Amino acid sequence: MNQHDRTEQDRPEQVEHQDRTAERLLGALGRVLRSEQIVADPAVMSGLAHDDAEWAPWQLPVAVVRVESTADVQAVVQVAIEHRAPVVPRGSGTGLSGGANAITGAIVIDLSKMTKIKMIDPVERFAVVQPGVINDDLRAACAEHGLWYPPDPASSPWSSIGGNVATNAGGVCCVKYGVTGDYVLGLEIVTGRGEVARIGKRTAKGVAGYDLTSLLVGSEGTLGIVTEITLRLRWQRPAEHTVVGYFDSITDAGVAVTKIAEAGLTPSALELVDRQCLEAVDAWKNMGLSADADVILLARCDAPDDAGAVEAAGVAAAFDAGGATWSAATDDQEEGDALFAARRLAYPALERLGPVLTEDICLPLRQVPAMLARIQQIAVDHETTIANIAHVGDGNLHPLLITPIGDEPARVRAQAAFADIIAGCLELGGTVTGEHGVGVLKLNGLASELSPVVQRMQADVKAALDPYRILNPGKAIAPVDNPEGDT
Amino acid sequence: MNQHDRTEQDRPEQVEHQDRTAERLLGALGRVLRSEQIVADPAVMSGLAHDDAEWAPWQLPVAVVRVESTADVQAVVQVAIEHRAPVVPRGSGTGLSGGANAITGAIVIDLSKMTKIKMIDPVERFAVVQPGVINDDLRAACAEHGLWYPPDPASSPWSSIGGNVATNAGGVCCVKYGVTGDYVLGLEIVTGRGEVARIGKRTAKGVAGYDLTSLLVGSEGTLGIVTEITLRLRWQRPAEHTVVGYFDSITDAGVAVTKIAEAGLTPSALELVDRQCLEAVDAWKNMGLSADADVILLARCDAPDDAGAVEAAGVAAAFDAGGATWSAATDDQEEGDALFAARRLAYPALERLGPVLTEDICLPLRQVPAMLARIQQIAVDHETTIANIAHVGDGNLHPLLITPIGDEPARVRAQAAFADIIAGCLELGGTVTGEHGVGVLKLNGLASELSPVVQRMQADVKAALDPYRILNPGKAIAPVDNPEGDT
Repeated sequence: MNQHDRTEQDRPEQVEHQDRTAERLLGALGRVLRSEQIVADPAVMSGLAHDDAEWAPWQLPVAVVRVESTADVQAVVQVAIEHRAPVVPRGSGTGLSGGANAITGAIVIDLSKMTKIKMIDPVERFAVVQPGVINDDLRAACAEHGLWYPPDPASSPWSSIGGNVATNAGGVCCVKYGVTGDYVLGLEIVTGRGEVARIGKRTAKGVAGYDLTSLLVGSEGTLGIVTEITLRLRWQRPAEHTVVGYFDSITDAGVAVTKIAEAGLTPSALELVDRQCLEAVDAWKNMGLSADADVILLARCDAPDDAGAVEAAGVAAAFDAGGATWSAATDDQEEGDALFAARRLAYPALERLGPVLTEDICLPLRQVPAMLARIQQIAVDHETTIANIAHVGDGNLHPLLITPIGDEPARVRAQAAFADIIAGCLELGGTVTGEHGVGVLKLNGLASELSPVVQRMQADVKAALDPYRILNPGKAIAPVDNPEGDT
Repeated sequence: MNQHDRTEQDRPEQVEHQDRTAERLLGALGRVLRSEQIVADPAVMSGLAHDDAEWAPWQLPVAVVRVESTADVQAVVQVAIEHRAPVVPRGSGTGLSGGANAITGAIVIDLSKMTKIKMIDPVERFAVVQPGVINDDLRAACAEHGLWYPPDPASSPWSSIGGNVATNAGGVCCVKYGVTGDYVLGLEIVTGRGEVARIGKRTAKGVAGYDLTSLLVGSEGTLGIVTEITLRLRWQRPAEHTVVGYFDSITDAGVAVTKIAEAGLTPSALELVDRQCLEAVDAWKNMGLSADADVILLARCDAPDDAGAVEAAGVAAAFDAGGATWSAATDDQEEGDALFAARRLAYPALERLGPVLTEDICLPLRQVPAMLARIQQIAVDHETTIANIAHVGDGNLHPLLITPIGDEPARVRAQAAFADIIAGCLELGGTVTGEHGVGVLKLNGLASELSPVVQRMQADVKAALDPYRILNPGKAIAPVDNPEGDT
């Protein structure tokens, strides 16, 4: 978390700025919620006024409300409309782009108490959940029915399904099974007009009217507040085989990734961990990884029966063809998990070195080696430590920019490196956010990525569904002046 | 096609109603297109002014324009904006809901000449195509690279990708592989403001801004005219096993379908063909099917290697557990295709009996037997022949209502049956269109299915993206009076 911004935003004048308007808003909230649902203590609010995005600005809201039902959310949104107060929805606060960051005058709607799994239907294969349900809790509940909810962001032990929906979260198994949005059949939302709408479907197919569900997924609370989610489920899959490859260079690893694609293989995970990560893990856990490899590729294969072993052997062969110095495959789950330890431990190992700003770019597969090379150069240019973990099978890179705590010049250099990475990614045909969302951190990148015509369409849609301009303003889409000016 | 409507719409007064406004419009079109691209001859236009939806109303447009490029489409849309003339896009005209049906004063934009496959990328696994490319042509081109474009509507030999996108078309393999929208990565469109926009992505993942691509898919040309499509591709899959089951009743077949779900199996096709279809096929091809079965279930399984045979045996066992009088599985492609003949021949066999009105409802799986029973009763109640083919693994039923040519009372009875089927489907928790789209045939059903709040959201989105109200007005969403009235 960015202590600098926090200190700046959290100063007493700011708190005192809760003027009569704020008092009226608190009074109105008090008429629709129980008093214990309303948090107005700045000390408590400061922990609920932002997500986990390093360096993303945030301000103290008027109140954080702990909603327990759709009716609560609707009542709060109606109050917000009446008072023209912004609403900022939040789940577990594990977001990495600042999408849940509060602004002055806002009501933060904390949905983390709405944790009911309302239904798991093993015949129709869907689940109906409230937005506060934790991803791993849903997965565990599904497993009891022999079912599987695939999307597996690294935050799955802590992040909520509502937050996953708001950002269209990805994860490790996306490379074969797709992202959150691929599993959202329907939503209940409170609209920008303060009404409750049920959009989407519970049937396997359906094309009745526009696909508002996909429009809402990834919209970061700017088009409606999600109060219930209907999720498509899969049957539990066969046990996975694990394949590991050690490489002497990023380039070799990049070649191995394209060899997998060219061989027609579809691994269920394909991750990259670079030297900076390996060294950090070694410094923490003394695993000796960085002595053996500059870059590690980790893959999983879950084709059924004998096909799984065939697929794993194919991936290992692709690793070798790409120039792996060592590769191995195993169908032992424990051994496989041990091989994946470098991936799992990388982030916490890096956090020991200082605040970590997580990038999230996604590129065409064949541009991945070039982008990784650029990142290395950007690290040198800006004297910034940049480690790389990547969902490399999707071309989704997470450069991790690390600065020593309190080192302001290092922070400035890292922010310049962050901007250069985005510019480089766009030059190579990539997108500024693969799975973390735009929030506030990627607003400038978004404005560079999308044409003015597309930005205008986004703004037109936002204006249409948020006529009172209260839904998480300033997030997810680049601001456009006077979006309806010439109609 | 509905000769009654056609005669009514096609009368000379109607043609003469191409007044000065129409002449000005034709003049403007003549300034942006070559003369041979503009069709204004009523006799030629009448074949291009509607799709294959039986009984859906249509009128003669001012002109049909044969566009050849994005620039052509943009020029036509700009003319349409200037003259406030509706534009009605069409592909191959194989739609079944009237989405491409023209209205008086409109310009029909015929995209069927835009047939370029611009790129097939075997590393990134996507294709870039113009909207007029025929589905089967794309599949053949992909196969040359070892790639596969899954969506396989029954119209695949004739229907265009642009039309598939406009209706979010389904098909037989959806039960395992999803519908058209699941494969659309990005679109180039001409917007309602007459601008060219590129929406979506070419990377495997990406969450930069709202998912306008999914919003456009299935919007039947009411939110933009699609001029280029980027499609996700899969690797070609293993050869399929085919499983057939004969049943004495719809109920038994319905039980077998739920047994497949309960057994955790994921067939790559699961189709139902009923007695009316079997009798029609027998009457045409003398295959003797109806002597052996009242209902046939047809499944395919494409798990790799030995897993495919295991899966096929599982499906056969589920058929038996549901009460099949006979079942068989084969991995011989020719034999499998022969078993699927009843499915393939059903529609043309029924068309020999008279005009076929194709229904397209989708229900929760466990409601399928109840719905099939209701359809049988509705057929009796309205003295209408109703045959059933179904993508039953998705709960997607296609009751086919057949009337003798020219039998007006039969037509009136069939329309009442059509309405009863929709009402029954909604009562059982289904949707009025699984894969054919709303067009004009399902507007009333849509108004019953969606809440006023959701209809208002749809209308707000439409108004935002079509500020001049020119994009295929009257299709896809139920009209709402004054959608922005109280903002």
